[in-house]
Amino acid sequence: MSTRRQLLQQGSATLLPTLLPALLPALVGCKTAPPTPQFAPRGSGDLGLVILRASGEVAVIDSSQRRVLGIIKGLGDLSHAAAVYARDGARAFVFGRDGGLTRVNLLTQRIEARVMQAGNSIGGAISQDGRLVVAQNYQPGGIKVFDAETLALRADIPALGANGQRSRVVGLADLPGQRFIYSLFDADAICIADLSDPDRPQVQRFDGIGRQPYDALVSPNGRHYIAGLFGEDGLALIDLWAERPEVRRILGGYGRGEQPLPVYKMPHLRGWALAGGTAWLPAIGRHEVLVADAQSWQEVARIPVAGQPVFVMARPDGRQVWVNFALPDYHKVQVIDVPSRRVIHSFEPGRAVLHLEFTPRGEAVWISCRDDNKVQVVDTASFKTLASLDLPAPSGIFMSARAARLGL
Amino acid sequence: MSTRRQLLQQGSATLLPTLLPALLPALVGCKTAPPTPQFAPRGSGDLGLVILRASGEVAVIDSSQRRVLGIIKGLGDLSHAAAVYARDGARAFVFGRDGGLTRVNLLTQRIEARVMQAGNSIGGAISQDGRLVVAQNYQPGGIKVFDAETLALRADIPALGANGQRSRVVGLADLPGQRFIYSLFDADAICIADLSDPDRPQVQRFDGIGRQPYDALVSPNGRHYIAGLFGEDGLALIDLWAERPEVRRILGGYGRGEQPLPVYKMPHLRGWALAGGTAWLPAIGRHEVLVADAQSWQEVARIPVAGQPVFVMARPDGRQVWVNFALPDYHKVQVIDVPSRRVIHSFEPGRAVLHLEFTPRGEAVWISCRDDNKVQVVDTASFKTLASLDLPAPSGIFMSARAARLGL
Repeated sequence: MSTRRQLLQQGSATLLPTLLPALLPALVGCKTAPPTPQFAPRGSGDLGLVILRASGEVAVIDSSQRRVLGIIKGLGDLSHAAAVYARDGARAFVFGRDGGLTRVNLLTQRIEARVMQAGNSIGGAISQDGRLVVAQNYQPGGIKVFDAETLALRADIPALGANGQRSRVVGLADLPGQRFIYSLFDADAICIADLSDPDRPQVQRFDGIGRQPYDALVSPNGRHYIAGLFGEDGLALIDLWAERPEVRRILGGYGRGEQPLPVYKMPHLRGWALAGGTAWLPAIGRHEVLVADAQSWQEVARIPVAGQPVFVMARPDGRQVWVNFALPDYHKVQVIDVPSRRVIHSFEPGRAVLHLEFTPRGEAVWISCRDDNKVQVVDTASFKTLASLDLPAPSGIFMSARAARLGL
Repeated sequence: MSTRRQLLQQGSATLLPTLLPALLPALVGCKTAPPTPQFAPRGSGDLGLVILRASGEVAVIDSSQRRVLGIIKGLGDLSHAAAVYARDGARAFVFGRDGGLTRVNLLTQRIEARVMQAGNSIGGAISQDGRLVVAQNYQPGGIKVFDAETLALRADIPALGANGQRSRVVGLADLPGQRFIYSLFDADAICIADLSDPDRPQVQRFDGIGRQPYDALVSPNGRHYIAGLFGEDGLALIDLWAERPEVRRILGGYGRGEQPLPVYKMPHLRGWALAGGTAWLPAIGRHEVLVADAQSWQEVARIPVAGQPVFVMARPDGRQVWVNFALPDYHKVQVIDVPSRRVIHSFEPGRAVLHLEFTPRGEAVWISCRDDNKVQVVDTASFKTLASLDLPAPSGIFMSARAARLGL
């Protein structure tokens, strides 16, 4: 915070980080910028980004050759960072913890644009047509809407509680049309902002949805929005296809009558999996994966796992669900077979597994092992390690095929 | 047909500008190939191909700018052509009717490799890892497997009937692992070829699946394979997740007791849509779209439409299903709202609508109108025409986001 305040006091928090790289050569008397490299035309469909959380960098990776193509530096505090892709799959918007919003180009391996847009940010989303990028902010609580091309601010929508105080925003996702849905952690609410005209955002609000929504997801088809509740057992569901969408509680009391367990790490719901007509999700604080019927939303099974699940992710074909865990079990990964609902493989790819990302068609999975400074690439059929890449403190992995997906 | 023939005979005002650049060097006696153009790095996520069926060319399109970037010539007979994408989304394999298999690069707008692999071919598929490309052939009936990099033949698998005669192959699709599934039109069979070792293909065969499978699809999650039957009412389904997969008949007798109608054009099953827990498919010869429950595979509804449906395609979010028709109704397109199962929009984008393709996130649809020599780009929310592109005799449209999809 103090760093940001200092920046603000110095004038233009937004411009300074952008200008810094340009000014630095002058400041250090350094010669000229390196020449722009020549690139043979290559597609972006098999590229991806790995967030390097300790160094404020992102690595550009090639999922066909399974190697690191380069490192892009200067993205600020990436201790909790996320990325979404432009329509071309070559440019990504990286949302940093410090409120930095940076557009990088994976082909040129350069920063194209960067603004400081908030004091504390938790991710973002991109509109269906790719023209608007939205950040979800903790501080100041709300969402901000930017032009994807220029990063100019188009709209600033505060998130307010009944008491008039700002709320942290979580669980932001794009919806078909120029709409975005998000949850208010401190105000027990869900909002849908229609940005068809960004100068006149229309916000529809659902109050009293349950205590402390902490993350959420949109089903792959854009129909259901599900927010996890930290303040109580259960989740809040909205059927967005209903004529009058309303909030419904599902999986209420999944831990009822039992002692709440200490929670070592907030599960990430973006990883929730819809596979084989069922939804797979982490039980907060419990060593279990919950399975719900994706039509009735009734619980149909619980699967004991090796720790508190963090990400519960379906392989793209939905045949397997992969799970990583909160500490002290975060060196483990387990694989569940969907039809039999059995753990079919357990292994330890490295220390501090923070994230997994499947290749677009699911033949491999990339796993960040922060404390081993490695990304492991694992075959999802044989479970063999296909490659092991040295990268400092890797966390989130974002493949460019996300450019074609809704609800991220 | 006569209109198209006239156009061709007239020399086609629309064709001429396209052909001129190619003809000019010949006209001025220029012999050398044009210099390789310089390309600024650009992503391939928003590129696509349009098959120009009369001229043996493909157009490279940009779905963000909604324009034609260039034309690639020399692909032979594309009167029934299909394309699949390499992992990078920039290179596509085009399967021509004459057995030509051509790899084109959308970024350089060049042919990279081309082989004549059969006498009569009907499409192809690419392995999950992108290393093998497979063609499905009518003549000689069977599949052929090629190295994606070199187009060298890796395996040649004849499709044989009980009588020892070769059968035409239809409905080829990739499955997870290095597997491919396909149907034998003349042998009433379905085969799964495992190409983990292309030197020793393992083929599993299902006989007696029903008369004359004419096309098929794999559900987006790779679990179900459904073949349409031309020789009888109903379809053949395999649950590929079952321990012992077997063929089951579904929607048997959907036209029972009624006079078979003349069929003006074979429906294309690749367009079958899974949306909102239901499968939407064309009824052969009937002016109806059939709706089946995607778990029980029982018929749940029939929707009257404006003609014999050819493609029945879900918008990527599954909220709408778009339908085009066989002649004489092939100037019409209808849009069905999935939850209410009602036709909500009917329009006439042009003459001889042969194909539709959604942009990756579904905000727009591209529609080939062969006899108007136009591709219309239509907003899927407002139904407004966003762009109208002049292209000679356009047919299949293939967006590069297909690179990330299974079962194509």
